[in-house]
Amino acid sequence: MPQLRVALAQVNPTVGDLTGNAQIVQNAVAEAATERAHLVLLPEFVLNGYSVDDLALRPSFQQASREALAKLATALNEDGYGEMVVVVGHLDRLDDQEDRLGVPHGSPINAASVIHRGKVIARYAKHHLPNYGVFDEFRYFVPGDKPLTIRIHGVDVTLAICEDLWQDGGPETWAREANAGLLAVINGSPYEKNKDDVRLQLCANRAREAGCALAYVNMVGGQDELVFDGDSLVVNETGTLVARAPQFEEGVMIVDLDLKAATAAAESVVVVSSDPLPPYEPLVMGVAVRAPDAHEVYGALVCGLRDYVRKNGFRSVLLGLSGGIDSALVAAIAVDALGPDNVYAVSMPSHYSSEHSKSDAQDMAERTGIHLRTIEIAPMIQAYLQSTELTGLAEENLQARVRGTLLMGISNQEGHLVLATGNKSELAVGYSTIYGDAVGGYAPIKDLLKTEVWALSRWRNDAAEITGATPPIPPNSIEKPPSAELRPGQLDSDSLPDYEVLDAILDEYVEGDRGAQDLIAKGFDRDLVIKTLRMVDGAEYKRRQYPPGTKVSSKAFGRDRRLPITNRWREKG
Amino acid sequence: MPQLRVALAQVNPTVGDLTGNAQIVQNAVAEAATERAHLVLLPEFVLNGYSVDDLALRPSFQQASREALAKLATALNEDGYGEMVVVVGHLDRLDDQEDRLGVPHGSPINAASVIHRGKVIARYAKHHLPNYGVFDEFRYFVPGDKPLTIRIHGVDVTLAICEDLWQDGGPETWAREANAGLLAVINGSPYEKNKDDVRLQLCANRAREAGCALAYVNMVGGQDELVFDGDSLVVNETGTLVARAPQFEEGVMIVDLDLKAATAAAESVVVVSSDPLPPYEPLVMGVAVRAPDAHEVYGALVCGLRDYVRKNGFRSVLLGLSGGIDSALVAAIAVDALGPDNVYAVSMPSHYSSEHSKSDAQDMAERTGIHLRTIEIAPMIQAYLQSTELTGLAEENLQARVRGTLLMGISNQEGHLVLATGNKSELAVGYSTIYGDAVGGYAPIKDLLKTEVWALSRWRNDAAEITGATPPIPPNSIEKPPSAELRPGQLDSDSLPDYEVLDAILDEYVEGDRGAQDLIAKGFDRDLVIKTLRMVDGAEYKRRQYPPGTKVSSKAFGRDRRLPITNRWREKG
Repeated sequence: MPQLRVALAQVNPTVGDLTGNAQIVQNAVAEAATERAHLVLLPEFVLNGYSVDDLALRPSFQQASREALAKLATALNEDGYGEMVVVVGHLDRLDDQEDRLGVPHGSPINAASVIHRGKVIARYAKHHLPNYGVFDEFRYFVPGDKPLTIRIHGVDVTLAICEDLWQDGGPETWAREANAGLLAVINGSPYEKNKDDVRLQLCANRAREAGCALAYVNMVGGQDELVFDGDSLVVNETGTLVARAPQFEEGVMIVDLDLKAATAAAESVVVVSSDPLPPYEPLVMGVAVRAPDAHEVYGALVCGLRDYVRKNGFRSVLLGLSGGIDSALVAAIAVDALGPDNVYAVSMPSHYSSEHSKSDAQDMAERTGIHLRTIEIAPMIQAYLQSTELTGLAEENLQARVRGTLLMGISNQEGHLVLATGNKSELAVGYSTIYGDAVGGYAPIKDLLKTEVWALSRWRNDAAEITGATPPIPPNSIEKPPSAELRPGQLDSDSLPDYEVLDAILDEYVEGDRGAQDLIAKGFDRDLVIKTLRMVDGAEYKRRQYPPGTKVSSKAFGRDRRLPITNRWREKG
Repeated sequence: MPQLRVALAQVNPTVGDLTGNAQIVQNAVAEAATERAHLVLLPEFVLNGYSVDDLALRPSFQQASREALAKLATALNEDGYGEMVVVVGHLDRLDDQEDRLGVPHGSPINAASVIHRGKVIARYAKHHLPNYGVFDEFRYFVPGDKPLTIRIHGVDVTLAICEDLWQDGGPETWAREANAGLLAVINGSPYEKNKDDVRLQLCANRAREAGCALAYVNMVGGQDELVFDGDSLVVNETGTLVARAPQFEEGVMIVDLDLKAATAAAESVVVVSSDPLPPYEPLVMGVAVRAPDAHEVYGALVCGLRDYVRKNGFRSVLLGLSGGIDSALVAAIAVDALGPDNVYAVSMPSHYSSEHSKSDAQDMAERTGIHLRTIEIAPMIQAYLQSTELTGLAEENLQARVRGTLLMGISNQEGHLVLATGNKSELAVGYSTIYGDAVGGYAPIKDLLKTEVWALSRWRNDAAEITGATPPIPPNSIEKPPSAELRPGQLDSDSLPDYEVLDAILDEYVEGDRGAQDLIAKGFDRDLVIKTLRMVDGAEYKRRQYPPGTKVSSKAFGRDRRLPITNRWREKG
């Protein structure tokens, strides 16, 4: 069987940075060249970043993308890599000769171009456009209508892009019909919990259906709400995993494969080279061990925060440290993402704050080495209360808003990005003050339920202990009963159901999209279900103004779950 | 030619309110019955409201919608209207027997059901699903694949839903092939400037292509960012307008038409009744006069605000009144939407505020009769500045945030909805303080450029003068140079280009999606273009957390223009 050395470039592009992304491609190809790879696969939309959203429709950006691709092809040749075959994902438009009935002239496509000897020798357009969950590709692209197989050193390689693989009747059929040796899939596949398991199973199934090996390359890094986990992998034609890259790490994975010799008619494929390579000694391949779930989620949150900060030109972050578990976990994530010297915290006690609030914040700072200052909010509160009458909930919210205003002031003064520390349970039921604790440019744990916040905090401390490091999170922050401390003796349990129950309901309603009757049938208390669902429905306006944060669940608030604010639909029991 | 009396019910449903919306349908049918109409057309999705967004995917809501439809059919019959033919738009799912290759079982559809004698006798599913601008219908629906023509009193009536009419090769073809007498189109068509002209032209063209009369019914009212303008109309088969309803007003328009007799084979249509009616005396029809553009936009803003307030269960609004033109116009709109007694304003001067700021706010209150209180912000500012060092921009923003906190506090205390008063020019370039002047549940003028704010203010005052009423907006608020008054002697023109130029650039860049090179080619100053576009690009994070507000332009910020926050693409000159 002919051999082929394939490089899967698991890289981290930035949306809109055509020059920087082209350089990332050049670096990856250079690295693959030192390993003498023959074929280099780069992710979907690597040249543009994913998702560029409405930039896909802007003619100036389309044009710049085309020019960047041509320049990249030339540069790769000038760098001495002209003989390598490089597959690059990018934004493009239909050419004149490709115009099809009913498709407007020059429509955008989600493309994979094959670069060889300084030229784009073939181009594939994604057939299956996802338009669910966080995806809106029907808004942007016309679907491709022609498969593409290229012949490299006597092996036929069929190309596909991301969603193509997830829909039946796509690349696995084309590869089988072409009797291809390899199905190469380039991806921009966002992380969510357990997706890696699904992905591996899918690749294994498709390889068997295609009757050939399958190489899957995915990007890595954060983009607003999304984080791409990499997890690039190769399975052989029996569906057995032969190589797998770690999640959330950049790198170029080199894989040596013995592949079926090409048999297709030459005119049905794009021929780069028909002669198999002389036999050579293959490299040893590795399969990265899957991390436990908590490790994986934590890695996603660190990656998402780090990239939001870095790609938006910030160096440091600022957060309010209440002594509670949410802000403690956010601080720990920030330390792991940016280092303690780039994390600034403020303790902002009121006369309702317990002693342990202050001491737990202090403990956190000592454990991690982050910067901590203390500002008493009483003088501001007094000034407001002397100017206008605010009682009850209005006074509770005032405390949160004074803290938000202080954080934003320090941010404006010193240039840190403010982090909101709310979790998904709070955000779901509206247990959060808009323009108060909700202020921030990024909200790292907004897609973690409260019970997951505790579990992840415990995991992070345990992970530290295993390596002999200081656990970052004060045990007292984990163990004490949660409280917003906005009135004397207040506990979350005064207003909310037990978090175990609440989170179970939220999981069914938000992620599962199940109605009240389904939940009651599952055994949840009827009144509690109705009350909880009403809280969720009524808090949509707050969520709409909440900062973005990393999606880790199968349905995050944000672009993943789209509901009207004005909405009188209420589930009935 | 057979006669038919058609009622176009231009009604205002609320998203999710199945019971209330069914009652609206019953009321409209009752009104049509008093006029002895034979066919009643109700808007697209009238039973559910438009757009229900992800509710379309929730099985409990789909089921409730089906049940509401069946109940409505029964109720209409019980009300004594069984002989009338009623066309109702609603959410539905494909039935088992309609399952099609590649379409998941029970997929949602955007449906029009024909009700007669207490039963749904036929159902049409929208063929063309819009998935651009504010529309995401590919996310929700599978397209229909069968036209529907019903025979009523010897006239064949072909049905269509909204976008069907805008795409070639749809209902105009079906109607022509069926030799229909009437093409009936039910719509949920959001307002934007000048759309009424386009809509009339389209209807006229389609009627000529179809070779028959065309009845177009549209909903009215606000739903979050969208406002539906009604503008229901009828054209005859030569494309001549024969009846037209006013914009932004609810009502049932009754139209008497002489229509082509049915000729299609009975098995190709759904027959309600084949015999033409005995001749009767037709009613006189009216064509509502089109309002001037300013009147129309103002009407849209009043309607959008009124419905956001009402449909979300508020009775009153609260805003900061700076003496400037933006807050003055918002106050005027609020007075027209809700009456002066439901409008609460706060003047919040600082030591940078000019005398005229306070006197202009006072003048506004006296002209309109709204509630006005004054709170000096100095004590709060002092308290913050004594607690932490804030200078320059941080101190300017602090003033805006103290005001925002005061407004939110009063809102929490008294239950008013807070209005943000920013305009589209500010929002575009980020000339706004997040969590400061940007606080609010609704932002009535966020889609008006600053030059439009002035023009609309002048128009509103002129309109008052014509009727002998007091112009609501202080002339000084209109005439004085705009200033944020956050530092001594500050003027907008210190930081921003002249608004005439700025707005022209924004119109090209935001609405036109044209790149820098196009703008420079049009004669705009190169440096100014680059600087302005960078401001727009850099302010995306602020816009993401800005409250919703009424869309009036062809591209509003919000769901209409979707760009990533993390985005290094910068237009080059």
